[in-house]
Amino acid sequence: MIYVTRRERFSAAHRLFREEWSEDQNLEVFDKCSYPNWHGHNYVLYITVKGELNPETGFVVNIKRLSKIIKEHITSKLDHRNLNMDVDFLKGKMASTENLAIGIWEQLKPIINALGIELHKIKIEETENNFVEYYGN
Amino acid sequence: MIYVTRRERFSAAHRLFREEWSEDQNLEVFDKCSYPNWHGHNYVLYITVKGELNPETGFVVNIKRLSKIIKEHITSKLDHRNLNMDVDFLKGKMASTENLAIGIWEQLKPIINALGIELHKIKIEETENNFVEYYGN
Amino acid sequence: MIYVTRRERFSAAHRLFREEWSEDQNLEVFDKCSYPNWHGHNYVLYITVKGELNPETGFVVNIKRLSKIIKEHITSKLDHRNLNMDVDFLKGKMASTENLAIGIWEQLKPIINALGIELHKIKIEETENNFVEYYGN
Amino acid sequence: MIYVTRRERFSAAHRLFREEWSEDQNLEVFDKCSYPNWHGHNYVLYITVKGELNPETGFVVNIKRLSKIIKEHITSKLDHRNLNMDVDFLKGKMASTENLAIGIWEQLKPIINALGIELHKIKIEETENNFVEYYGN
Amino acid sequence: MIYVTRRERFSAAHRLFREEWSEDQNLEVFDKCSYPNWHGHNYVLYITVKGELNPETGFVVNIKRLSKIIKEHITSKLDHRNLNMDVDFLKGKMASTENLAIGIWEQLKPIINALGIELHKIKIEETENNFVEYYGN
Amino acid sequence: MIYVTRRERFSAAHRLFREEWSEDQNLEVFDKCSYPNWHGHNYVLYITVKGELNPETGFVVNIKRLSKIIKEHITSKLDHRNLNMDVDFLKGKMASTENLAIGIWEQLKPIINALGIELHKIKIEETENNFVEYYGN
Repeated sequence: MIYVTRRERFSAAHRLFREEWSEDQNLEVFDKCSYPNWHGHNYVLYITVKGELNPETGFVVNIKRLSKIIKEHITSKLDHRNLNMDVDFLKGKMASTENLAIGIWEQLKPIINALGIELHKIKIEETENNFVEYYGN
Repeated sequence: MIYVTRRERFSAAHRLFREEWSEDQNLEVFDKCSYPNWHGHNYVLYITVKGELNPETGFVVNIKRLSKIIKEHITSKLDHRNLNMDVDFLKGKMASTENLAIGIWEQLKPIINALGIELHKIKIEETENNFVEYYGN
Repeated sequence: MIYVTRRERFSAAHRLFREEWSEDQNLEVFDKCSYPNWHGHNYVLYITVKGELNPETGFVVNIKRLSKIIKEHITSKLDHRNLNMDVDFLKGKMASTENLAIGIWEQLKPIINALGIELHKIKIEETENNFVEYYGN
Repeated sequence: MIYVTRRERFSAAHRLFREEWSEDQNLEVFDKCSYPNWHGHNYVLYITVKGELNPETGFVVNIKRLSKIIKEHITSKLDHRNLNMDVDFLKGKMASTENLAIGIWEQLKPIINALGIELHKIKIEETENNFVEYYGN
Repeated sequence: MIYVTRRERFSAAHRLFREEWSEDQNLEVFDKCSYPNWHGHNYVLYITVKGELNPETGFVVNIKRLSKIIKEHITSKLDHRNLNMDVDFLKGKMASTENLAIGIWEQLKPIINALGIELHKIKIEETENNFVEYYGN
Repeated sequence: MIYVTRRERFSAAHRLFREEWSEDQNLEVFDKCSYPNWHGHNYVLYITVKGELNPETGFVVNIKRLSKIIKEHITSKLDHRNLNMDVDFLKGKMASTENLAIGIWEQLKPIINALGIELHKIKIEETENNFVEYYGN
């Protein structure tokens, strides 16, 4: 088993708040992340897959193909978008980094499996100080 | 003359578009940056000042004081905000990194001068691939 | 299970040596780290916790709260301090990055547990070339 | 158990291609990596070992000794070399990052074991966007 | 005047040696860089241009256009190539980072000028420890 | 004229305080930097030289030679040392990053001049947020 990771980036807007809560309650829980006019981040996404080595190519997976898949299915839907408003797989969920990681996992898992390898980890850095990792339940 | 630089960070939403232009025209010029529901960045800001060394402290400027000034006058107005909607010194201007650098320069120059030192440069990184520098015309 | 990591930093002095050893013996084992007048580092600390997602907030843990806990219990005791002389939880131990990681783990574990989540990993970078990870025994 | 990681770097040339394939076939699979006159990378290597703490030194392993071992057995054979032509432990294999990680693991494992600790992971970054991890099958 | 910088990357092979020198002489001057079977680097290129702000766009230059120009005229000729053998604008010159910077300057200057702005600086990082800057004689 | 920069690193302890001031006064001016038992940093040093290209080597300066000079004259005196107690060229001065930059400039200038090139800049990063640049008065 070898683990291969591809880094991709996207810039998006978001906001953390619950409509049914008062502004004060939102501020208490989400602080500046609840400000009404959105803010945003340069998110950094690390997709880790694992599998056996193909001795003919020396690859677990062709990383250009992996990158294309991530761009087509994930970052094209997230880059320069609003995570609360524009992303189908986040509809009805808080636009937190945790939910983003779970959503990306669920989008990618069947596609990565179809390549004969396994999805191992989704890691997302929201800022240089905060990141989230998800390995599937 | 010694140059001292303080790095500060802020996360903000923005959008590049001209209301009087059609959507197609905005897309042609601003590409994904014109998408309607905002996007955002982790901006990295470098404030460089210059001055003579104070031999008693070994400092050009007390960098904690400099940091406080930047937070009070600049990043508190930008962090977790919408650059198009929330920032007084960007009103009526395109929310580009260039205008942000000029606006920050104009805010900080009189305050830095009042410390007996000079503002030398504003540098802003919008992404790891793009940055802008401004030295005051 | 989702893993959330907070990065914090502290700058500290330390020295590696055993009093009962000769200077030569200390130099042979600890090399420059045994120099008598201390040296120091910009330590980078990564605290990883794990837990279930709270669907109401989209969080495993409120990361601002986590950051406050780390500052109150850990970095306020380490930042701008001497690891050999000033840190209660390192008393009587070598001031190595390994012992620092174990000490931070022991300080944080009960506090993190009390939040209803688990402490997963302490990672400390001493320099850009050396880092230590500890997962509890 | 504590995990200690040493980072080392080497700059090398390589090329991905199979002699028995046509140029077109090589281009289709390996793209620019198959260009005939070589290209190269600044590889970044992370060697992670694990073991018990030695209470006398506060170390799992003397990291200067670990660094020397990596330089003697690994990076001296790779740095400023051609991975396809110059490296004994890659002979007959594709010069991929995956094979490099496996090869380094096999070189280091007996040497690290002889120190009374265990080799845990080989991580190699080929570019800022691509990296490979190997834990020994 | 505002300064705008675009970062681009390319991975290339090269070798430093003079054919008319003996192997020993090449080793003495160029050390490992003269090894016969090439080595390579992940070069990082920073192109800085300067100009007046266009108030309609908020740009000095459309950075997507700038990126396309750099890719078409520079990195497509360098990426996954051999700097000694494959690059027209380095023919007959030592494949040093200094000559690379001068060569890129000469390629880009007329093209940047034609945009109504000025080329200000070429910066190239060869490794994390070495970089070169060129401002045109 | 081409500018060549070499990065070197050193880890040192220091403290900012004036003996003739009270503890309170030191705390007011120097804050945590005045704590009595020292603290330290991983300093990052960038030495920039400038000169004409030597067409025979493609170099402004042999960077291995430059690195050796910096190690012999600068970092060997600073690495794993106490800036207040151990460094001849800081004797009698505040151990600030500013004074460090000036001191390194004065040490290196005659040695770099003797190579037939010029010293252009000393840059020192004390932390990821603070750095100082000196060009010689």
